[in-house]
Amino acid sequence: MTGIVAIIGSGVIGAGWAARFLLGGWHVRVFDPDPGAETRLEATIARAKVSLPGLYDTPLPPPGRLSLHATIPEAVSGATWIQENLPERLELKRKVFQTIQAACAPEAILASSSAGLTLDALRACATRPAQICAIRPCDPVYLLPLAEVTCPEPAVADRIQAILTGLGMIPSDGSVTQSLQAALLRRALEMIRDGEASPVQIDEALRLGLAPLWSQRGPFGTASDGAGPAQFALTEGADGKAWTDSPADTPALSRSSPPASDARFVQRDAALVGMLRALKAETVGAGAGLADADRARVPAQGADTAPLLTAARTVPRDWADYNGHMTEARYLHAFGNATDRFMEILGVDADYLASGGSFFTAETHIRHLAELRIGAAFEIRTTCLDGTGKRMHLWHEMRCDGVLVATGEHMLIHVSLETRRPAPPASPVAEALARIAQAHARLATGPGVGRAIGDPR
Amino acid sequence: MTGIVAIIGSGVIGAGWAARFLLGGWHVRVFDPDPGAETRLEATIARAKVSLPGLYDTPLPPPGRLSLHATIPEAVSGATWIQENLPERLELKRKVFQTIQAACAPEAILASSSAGLTLDALRACATRPAQICAIRPCDPVYLLPLAEVTCPEPAVADRIQAILTGLGMIPSDGSVTQSLQAALLRRALEMIRDGEASPVQIDEALRLGLAPLWSQRGPFGTASDGAGPAQFALTEGADGKAWTDSPADTPALSRSSPPASDARFVQRDAALVGMLRALKAETVGAGAGLADADRARVPAQGADTAPLLTAARTVPRDWADYNGHMTEARYLHAFGNATDRFMEILGVDADYLASGGSFFTAETHIRHLAELRIGAAFEIRTTCLDGTGKRMHLWHEMRCDGVLVATGEHMLIHVSLETRRPAPPASPVAEALARIAQAHARLATGPGVGRAIGDPR
Repeated sequence: MTGIVAIIGSGVIGAGWAARFLLGGWHVRVFDPDPGAETRLEATIARAKVSLPGLYDTPLPPPGRLSLHATIPEAVSGATWIQENLPERLELKRKVFQTIQAACAPEAILASSSAGLTLDALRACATRPAQICAIRPCDPVYLLPLAEVTCPEPAVADRIQAILTGLGMIPSDGSVTQSLQAALLRRALEMIRDGEASPVQIDEALRLGLAPLWSQRGPFGTASDGAGPAQFALTEGADGKAWTDSPADTPALSRSSPPASDARFVQRDAALVGMLRALKAETVGAGAGLADADRARVPAQGADTAPLLTAARTVPRDWADYNGHMTEARYLHAFGNATDRFMEILGVDADYLASGGSFFTAETHIRHLAELRIGAAFEIRTTCLDGTGKRMHLWHEMRCDGVLVATGEHMLIHVSLETRRPAPPASPVAEALARIAQAHARLATGPGVGRAIGDPR
Repeated sequence: MTGIVAIIGSGVIGAGWAARFLLGGWHVRVFDPDPGAETRLEATIARAKVSLPGLYDTPLPPPGRLSLHATIPEAVSGATWIQENLPERLELKRKVFQTIQAACAPEAILASSSAGLTLDALRACATRPAQICAIRPCDPVYLLPLAEVTCPEPAVADRIQAILTGLGMIPSDGSVTQSLQAALLRRALEMIRDGEASPVQIDEALRLGLAPLWSQRGPFGTASDGAGPAQFALTEGADGKAWTDSPADTPALSRSSPPASDARFVQRDAALVGMLRALKAETVGAGAGLADADRARVPAQGADTAPLLTAARTVPRDWADYNGHMTEARYLHAFGNATDRFMEILGVDADYLASGGSFFTAETHIRHLAELRIGAAFEIRTTCLDGTGKRMHLWHEMRCDGVLVATGEHMLIHVSLETRRPAPPASPVAEALARIAQAHARLATGPGVGRAIGDPR
């Protein structure tokens, strides 16, 4: 279901809610007297429009309408859901709740994003206290699914649950994020104050270790996986001190998740590899150094008089599909990387791209001759079939243990990145391409070259 | 550089170190009297061999040799690096250090993985105290890069730094992980004890919110990005309590990372989307519900008498390349998904796969006719050109705003998943395929069908 939502206060969290609702198909009415509110809102929604659909392989519903309103009554009148995101000042919030409740429908959901205030405090001076609940998201609201819900009325809680789920969020009953975060930050600030650690160390401990690990099953789920440090922390007191209160409910912890198995560890590792590669793509967190390692290990391409070695790697688990072998798109991923390496050898580097030239792929023909399983190591060697004018015609052969498993034939056209139209390559790329094409003209090529699909040649 | 490493104790952490060193090209000698040690070691190394190479686009060095040893002197004699991973019992560790130092080279690096014991305690009874240092990794050691190093001798610390970096790890000076983890778990156990929270809630708060967020820049880096809750936690006390000690060194925190910009938020969002998609692929953490949302939103394919709608989505940021448009492999990713959807329409579902039949792609021909930018929405419609015998010949047209941007022509062969050889499809898949192929025989197809690369037709 969708409807009308009123966003009261559009700072980081309010703007994030606006984006989440808008892209979920809701009509969004915003009240925020700050002169910078509209610009911030537009920037947040623009980022959400680029990022949120990327989570899905299916289209989002058509977005709703966004409108800005000069008064609270105008924004909330007729709204199904009202989300308050004002600064954490109790008196301000209480006054605003009175204004909201004078104008909104009594059956509307009225939720506060307050991170630090209790529901009792928020409700204390309200006209209809039971209408107010707390729903605490995590920034960026339009991407992270967490929504901590404090709503003692079961019927309202059910409506909230259904709406949040429809928005792609995952409601969690209660509110623990702020306490957990505060406990960790307090300890961190103590260590910094006492000269035991720097902020950089704290950040490294989280981003290079604990946080990617906890992203899958949280700290207790991780502990019940039997991961060394977390298990130790629960049983012995991880900082070397004894627990002052023995955690009497340890049995409850072990019930929170099924016991670990080799299959669970394989799943954990596959998800970690995927996460770290995502961080690698943006050069951040635990993925920041991975591209440097690749650059230090690029294989030598060999002499121009033979097909050039343009790729060598193994098949990661998440490159395989339900048929148990490397999925077809990853063949083109690998051939595309080989083409990129060939372009690097020609001298198409960051400077060349910045000067406005590049090659775009116009056509691709892939033949699958054998299967590649997870963990298989393969190499790609590349022959240049033609390198005259704007054309670059490449022939890639992918081999595993000497067996030809696939071929990739690619026609690329050199373009101007400014006009996006074909244009001849500049020196010295043109000369390098001509030289390799000439050296490769004498090489024999396989029977698949120049073939159409279904062609018996 | 590589060399010989001795692993003393091969539990979760020791086996993880063994795998990290082995795949880094080191010869690994293991001492562990536990009868289950060898099996555990083999399972860990097998998982590392499948997962670790997946982080890289280049080949790892050839792995070293693994050997198991019955005594500590045999394992450590001649080793460049000795890593101790015994249970957290100080007396045991002290005794073992004496045995190790009686047999190892005085210049060998001798490191403890101890999570809870201080370096002073570890060194206290040693023959050569200054030889001992603490290097604390995070499980799984072969994937997570964190290595917290406590080594007061600068020359040794430099050697450790160089070796860990060569192993793909990121050394961090000091030891804060255990204290941070303990502070968070203590608070969590207090809330559980007091009936304020369940272990599930704690895990949800971390895995659906804080942990994916912290994976990029850690808690202080996140706070300086201006993310709402973390910023609040630092300035006001996130749990509603005032700080007992004002964090006098807040200026140091703001220096720990550059200020946030729109570009930083775009990067953060792109990395988050990639991480969540990795979690989606393994149905875990914040990605667990995303596939359900897709299943609920599969577009209706339409009548058999027209090309079927087999995909509709937008271009995520990480599908684009340095040329600023959708990278070539993602065209085949999208066409592959369209083929999967076509197979689903035929009745190729989990049951059918379990019965032993599937289609494998034999050949692919892609033509690029226009560019697709980040955020562009596209659709794929599919015509079945042939569906007789074992063959399934498909023609995909990809359109954005009505403009044909690419075509994909695919020849698939039906196979037995047992023999991995061609075999005819079973009922009712064969009949569904024949019916659609017949209905599609009357449809006009574009000029690119059956064309070879460079063919002027």
